[in-house]
Amino acid sequence: MVSPGGSLLVAWQLKDKHVLIVGGGDVASSRLESVLAADARVTIICPSTGLHPLTKQFIAGPYQITYHDRVFGGTEDLAGVDMVLTAIDDVDQSRVICSLCRDLKIPVNVADIPESCDFYFGSQIRDGPLQIMISTNGQSPKLANIIKRKIEKSLPEHTGDAIEKVGKLRAMLKERAPGVGGEVSKRRMKWMVDVCNSLRIEELAQMDEQTMNKLLDEGWENDTVPRLRGLGIQRHLPISIPTVSTAMPTVLTFIAGFTCASMLLLSRSR
Amino acid sequence: MVSPGGSLLVAWQLKDKHVLIVGGGDVASSRLESVLAADARVTIICPSTGLHPLTKQFIAGPYQITYHDRVFGGTEDLAGVDMVLTAIDDVDQSRVICSLCRDLKIPVNVADIPESCDFYFGSQIRDGPLQIMISTNGQSPKLANIIKRKIEKSLPEHTGDAIEKVGKLRAMLKERAPGVGGEVSKRRMKWMVDVCNSLRIEELAQMDEQTMNKLLDEGWENDTVPRLRGLGIQRHLPISIPTVSTAMPTVLTFIAGFTCASMLLLSRSR
Repeated sequence: MVSPGGSLLVAWQLKDKHVLIVGGGDVASSRLESVLAADARVTIICPSTGLHPLTKQFIAGPYQITYHDRVFGGTEDLAGVDMVLTAIDDVDQSRVICSLCRDLKIPVNVADIPESCDFYFGSQIRDGPLQIMISTNGQSPKLANIIKRKIEKSLPEHTGDAIEKVGKLRAMLKERAPGVGGEVSKRRMKWMVDVCNSLRIEELAQMDEQTMNKLLDEGWENDTVPRLRGLGIQRHLPISIPTVSTAMPTVLTFIAGFTCASMLLLSRSR
Repeated sequence: MVSPGGSLLVAWQLKDKHVLIVGGGDVASSRLESVLAADARVTIICPSTGLHPLTKQFIAGPYQITYHDRVFGGTEDLAGVDMVLTAIDDVDQSRVICSLCRDLKIPVNVADIPESCDFYFGSQIRDGPLQIMISTNGQSPKLANIIKRKIEKSLPEHTGDAIEKVGKLRAMLKERAPGVGGEVSKRRMKWMVDVCNSLRIEELAQMDEQTMNKLLDEGWENDTVPRLRGLGIQRHLPISIPTVSTAMPTVLTFIAGFTCASMLLLSRSR
């Protein structure tokens, strides 16, 4: 029933948490971007000679970053730290940092040394509130990347917008019908599911505050989801209207049939 | 440059780690499945009256589960625990457990109380070594689910198999050309990227050990990726061959053109 050998994929919360990054190269800069996107406070320890241009840009940017131009100094660098990411070439130093973190029960990821990692990173997609992670559990980072691009192409346009709008509608509904747990909670959840099932992602993304109020007034209050026409949302058709390029084969086939018949009949009539 | 407000999506490693689950209802059973898939050792604390049939099935199954038929007892239940997941209705008890975990620096997730969570769960896809997580950062679990189904449909068949095969090829290559870091590491990585770029996922999934050896003998040794024909892999065509149903409109359009011309010419010839 359970397929073993996997990882536990989770969305770690770093808001106002303190992340230490040891190293400043290209891997460190990508780690930096990931933790800044999760609203972490960051400390970077790395001699300035080892800073990647991107890392420099982040340090100079409008972020919560404290930078120390030196190598890792020992336990005192771990005081008040909630997560440690190292990306340095010195394997022995990496192992020392990992061991200190384990003693202090600080989650740690050491780039390129799987056994020194409490967690791994994967290929990621971000579109507003939407985050998708693709992990091959270390089997093929390249395929993870190829799959990531396929998924990016398959997502409807404005998916991030749709999620944001639905989140807003949900918050407005909670204001209108407050309460945690029990019947009201269940009714809210059911209605939100109905809304998400009745409208396409492209349609949900078109909602504005007026539409949301109409949905709540006419829908929630009457325990239904109103028709699109009344909501001022443009119907999104899954089947596209034929364009010149898609209609062309049909036109050409008709002409071919027409021409064949003409030639056949004209040649016989002579 | 950085889009804030997100989470840090990671693949947490639980092999031989000890996870405590407090609760035994349907949410707890889904947590249980997730951590068993990551090879965790699990302890469940829940009065037997509160066990969901699925949780019971897991407890009776061939898994590393220790079950205690009682409520949570306090700090002593957290000894040697690496992660805590609670899914109980008692909000006060949940907050107590969360606070104990924070004191002991044990990562904790309390179902339905976001502020008591160090991490969230999301919609997940699993196909062998492939794991995909979809998070809307709490905005819309239903849309996460809809997006999950869209992604499942968009993935090529046998994607999990392809990843497994590529992982095996990578291991065989590492045996043939061992060494960590430096030139050989770079050449290995580049060749693996070439292989993944040259073959489609459906084609990679067809590789057997013989194919892999051929790829290594003829490809790696000559610094190239051999053609499919020599590898015994069936070419996977992205454009499907027209079947009766897809060819029908074309045939009908031709007949329509033919008929129109015939009628026109025959009516004039009279």
